[in-house]
Amino acid sequence: MNETSTLLHSSRIEPRWGDQDALGHANNAVYLSWLEEARLRWLLSLPGPWNSETASPVLARAEINYRRPLIWPQPLRIELYALRLGSSSLTLGHRIHGDDVDGLLFADGQVVMVWVDPKTGRSVPLPEPVRRAAAG
Amino acid sequence: MNETSTLLHSSRIEPRWGDQDALGHANNAVYLSWLEEARLRWLLSLPGPWNSETASPVLARAEINYRRPLIWPQPLRIELYALRLGSSSLTLGHRIHGDDVDGLLFADGQVVMVWVDPKTGRSVPLPEPVRRAAAG
Amino acid sequence: MNETSTLLHSSRIEPRWGDQDALGHANNAVYLSWLEEARLRWLLSLPGPWNSETASPVLARAEINYRRPLIWPQPLRIELYALRLGSSSLTLGHRIHGDDVDGLLFADGQVVMVWVDPKTGRSVPLPEPVRRAAAG
Amino acid sequence: MNETSTLLHSSRIEPRWGDQDALGHANNAVYLSWLEEARLRWLLSLPGPWNSETASPVLARAEINYRRPLIWPQPLRIELYALRLGSSSLTLGHRIHGDDVDGLLFADGQVVMVWVDPKTGRSVPLPEPVRRAAAG
Repeated sequence: MNETSTLLHSSRIEPRWGDQDALGHANNAVYLSWLEEARLRWLLSLPGPWNSETASPVLARAEINYRRPLIWPQPLRIELYALRLGSSSLTLGHRIHGDDVDGLLFADGQVVMVWVDPKTGRSVPLPEPVRRAAAG
Repeated sequence: MNETSTLLHSSRIEPRWGDQDALGHANNAVYLSWLEEARLRWLLSLPGPWNSETASPVLARAEINYRRPLIWPQPLRIELYALRLGSSSLTLGHRIHGDDVDGLLFADGQVVMVWVDPKTGRSVPLPEPVRRAAAG
Repeated sequence: MNETSTLLHSSRIEPRWGDQDALGHANNAVYLSWLEEARLRWLLSLPGPWNSETASPVLARAEINYRRPLIWPQPLRIELYALRLGSSSLTLGHRIHGDDVDGLLFADGQVVMVWVDPKTGRSVPLPEPVRRAAAG
Repeated sequence: MNETSTLLHSSRIEPRWGDQDALGHANNAVYLSWLEEARLRWLLSLPGPWNSETASPVLARAEINYRRPLIWPQPLRIELYALRLGSSSLTLGHRIHGDDVDGLLFADGQVVMVWVDPKTGRSVPLPEPVRRAAAG
């Protein structure tokens, strides 16, 4: 997510009141659910198949920096960036901003997705629609 | 979590069937809830106060590697390690193992906790019971 | 929710992929989170205070009928109805429809909300903005 | 759950800190996750198959009364009762107690489970191990 990172997708997510925990702000775990939702919307938007009986995405690693407390109601805009493209893996950067005039940065980080054969668990080549989209 | 890391705490967590998602294994976000639970049990076990009106812990960063799919029912043992001790922050390593004879490693990683004044959001010195426990 | 029930509020909710469980459809518990979100949006839309240090809403009872499996992505429209107005309680009917041309009914039911003094747990009179809205 | 109801199963559930919401007590939706967990442990304990490619349980209805606020940490004991046995459905009563000397009642209610053919969605006869266990 430096100046040359490719923005892959941007989507609006509405946190729920129940995403907040006993500290009165959004719980740390639910950020991963929002990010998962953003990734799936991106994948759904591709012009070809990204999931099949022999090539299905799993999450291998997640990193997230919590930049400031997030209090409901606060609509969000989640941006996904292509950071690294491997033969069977894809590193996506993410930024979670307020979807409003302030546009404050609430969190950022990255995840590593790997495509595997669900039957064997072994990594397989990235589906072409995924590779093409991520290659920009 | 190298050979010299200090094991701070170990606790048993029972994943719930509902922690699984449509892929039929535990969802990536819920690992952060298990880890949060383990951290809070550790904090509760300290001999003195770790949370007050002027010094409360927040999560600044989380990192997690998903090592293999986790399918219910699978009791877990979560180990927490002291990795780095700052003036107002603490880096905890975590390992999520099966709590059974195989003891497979399901995930590992680390988090950075920071103690802040809830009213101002500014970082404050670590509470003494936390510092003492983490210093070993 | 018969022909004379008052429609209080209607809002759009977007289920998340992660709301699905290992059966591949939305998990039964998450419907209550969607309904909670709809109730809070309704309360936030009232022209006066509905929550204070001496009168805060809690849920006393929930009933829900699951009418058909719900598979992501499926935007929803949640309708809330005033069914019964007590001195300190309010019974709200709910309907969860697809927010699309089919408008299928996915679930319905009702909840009982009670306003209590958070310090004592005793029931208190409904806040006037709540009573007025629910009385139609 | 009157004096003649058959107790089917009793299990210990550990709420998580993150099950609490911004009101500082367990969120209403998560009770359904605990109950689901209890039901699945009961089903797993049966001496024969309760789930197959042609007969899988779904939840048709849930009712729950929230009797008092529940604050972490608070281990629970969930009791399941057979209330009504239909040809393809089973009504289970549930009680959520503290699993400690006080044994306070936190919630109670019931659910209706229906066994269906996952391919057609049509109801099918209860699997024999389920029927036998519920018939007492």
